[in-house]
Amino acid sequence: MDELKIIEIIKNILKYNNKNTIKGIGDDCAIINFNNKYLALTTDTICRKTHIPDILTPYQIGVRVLTANISDLVSCGAKPLYFLLSIVLSKYEANEDFIKELYKGLYEYSEIYKCPIIGGDTVKGYELVLSGFALGECIKPLYRCGNAKDKLVVTNNIGRVYCALYLYYRYKRGKISKNELEKYEEKYKEIFKKLRYPRAKIEFLKIVEFVRGACDISDGLAKELKYFKSFYIYSDKLYKLIPEDVLEFCEEFNLNPIKVALNSGEEFEILFTTNKLTTIKRKLKEMKFIEIGEIIENGQFIDGEHFNEEGYIYHW
Amino acid sequence: MDELKIIEIIKNILKYNNKNTIKGIGDDCAIINFNNKYLALTTDTICRKTHIPDILTPYQIGVRVLTANISDLVSCGAKPLYFLLSIVLSKYEANEDFIKELYKGLYEYSEIYKCPIIGGDTVKGYELVLSGFALGECIKPLYRCGNAKDKLVVTNNIGRVYCALYLYYRYKRGKISKNELEKYEEKYKEIFKKLRYPRAKIEFLKIVEFVRGACDISDGLAKELKYFKSFYIYSDKLYKLIPEDVLEFCEEFNLNPIKVALNSGEEFEILFTTNKLTTIKRKLKEMKFIEIGEIIENGQFIDGEHFNEEGYIYHW
Repeated sequence: MDELKIIEIIKNILKYNNKNTIKGIGDDCAIINFNNKYLALTTDTICRKTHIPDILTPYQIGVRVLTANISDLVSCGAKPLYFLLSIVLSKYEANEDFIKELYKGLYEYSEIYKCPIIGGDTVKGYELVLSGFALGECIKPLYRCGNAKDKLVVTNNIGRVYCALYLYYRYKRGKISKNELEKYEEKYKEIFKKLRYPRAKIEFLKIVEFVRGACDISDGLAKELKYFKSFYIYSDKLYKLIPEDVLEFCEEFNLNPIKVALNSGEEFEILFTTNKLTTIKRKLKEMKFIEIGEIIENGQFIDGEHFNEEGYIYHW
Repeated sequence: MDELKIIEIIKNILKYNNKNTIKGIGDDCAIINFNNKYLALTTDTICRKTHIPDILTPYQIGVRVLTANISDLVSCGAKPLYFLLSIVLSKYEANEDFIKELYKGLYEYSEIYKCPIIGGDTVKGYELVLSGFALGECIKPLYRCGNAKDKLVVTNNIGRVYCALYLYYRYKRGKISKNELEKYEEKYKEIFKKLRYPRAKIEFLKIVEFVRGACDISDGLAKELKYFKSFYIYSDKLYKLIPEDVLEFCEEFNLNPIKVALNSGEEFEILFTTNKLTTIKRKLKEMKFIEIGEIIENGQFIDGEHFNEEGYIYHW
């Protein structure tokens, strides 16, 4: 059983006929029509063992769950409005220090995102689980789509989170010591910073009018690309997405940088299609936009070869 | 550490100055002003070990999480609009049968509540956790409040869920066998029905204009009463809330029916204040309204004694 099969089962059961639901199950956000305004709703959940490296502080866990939800809104073209958090606390987290630090992270980033936390639920359980819910107002609803000849563009750079988690899992498997992990963090500061302090790309909202379709790439670029029916990726362009420190890291650990770029999750960057990239670059100079390929009529390719990376999909 | 302390810590950190947030942390719902309409947002989470008796079928688990969220909306005077579900599946639930049955329950009850499920998140974890999120439109925002001399009223009857769980926990502790539990379920059909097929009181929305304040009593009547600053409860009136089968059950198992009524959780009934009970009874004949006491100027009493039941509060 994998998550794509589960979503298929769910979609087959939930057959509504609701003209106000613009976008439903299976996308980053649901989008509804409420009194002639578009509202976007999303939920994103993280669990201690599956999603939260134990090197993260409570503050950083708060940042992470909020950012994941805000990123979903932004990639659908929605301005964040409000956030709610359901939290399952085990006995390990039900103490004042943990809760204060967690909510400090949530609070400070909610101020950055201009998205106040207005409610939640706090329950007792056996593993830390944080379920965020965010409501936003759509400026222009964006879907995972593109027209032939549209450029495929990614914001900023990717690969760092993959590298940070690569080291973290080596540490968890006993291949490197805590001390070595800390030394690597000292050496690869920016790589660990992207894991610890992810930032949703709210600036993206300034240019949505020039964007055709978009999605966030929190499960890896490869997985998200495959939702676009047909595309052609150039690996030399993809290469430009990869920052210097990631290239250095890949050399040190003998990793393929293209694979790293395609499979790095939790990056909170945005993949989008547009035929107005020049305008976008002019309008939003403070953000990096890297063209990695284009939408074509048929097929999924990388450098002429069939594209067969899958990204991160849950399997049970 | 208990949940009231945690909510206090959270409230102290989240200090926003947002004029559009009508009602925030610490209530059944958050209420916001969106383009001069009141929207209500709520989230409610259930975990396998803490909240889900293992005699519930997947269908009944779906009904439960949806109903808990809808009940929060209704008790704030909000008409349900949309629902999202984040679900953490362990390997025990990640199979087609479980998922189909769960979503069948969700789907059928979402049709009853006229509240389509439009999104969610599905993740892998080690314990089943369901976090629901519901959006509603407020007809009239209701708070936990009342004026002196307002009557305190409860919808329908309470106590059955307490009794069903009482037997369930006897079974879990090995005091009675599976076979005996099934025989009791045969004898006390309605008691188990209320556990298995809870129903949010959406009819309540028809009379909100005559209601002063309200809350749902999913953590027990006692806990919710204490949020009202001052009240006087009459135990003989409270007695009228208790259905015949619960009285019979209390006799058989030597339980105090008043304690049962005050501490029965997950009932999804509503506690409200009003000075127009006669009108309410006339307007909504199909629903039972039972007056249990009134709001007073000072103090919390039951039959002249200080009221000191606490209801269900999480302790870690």
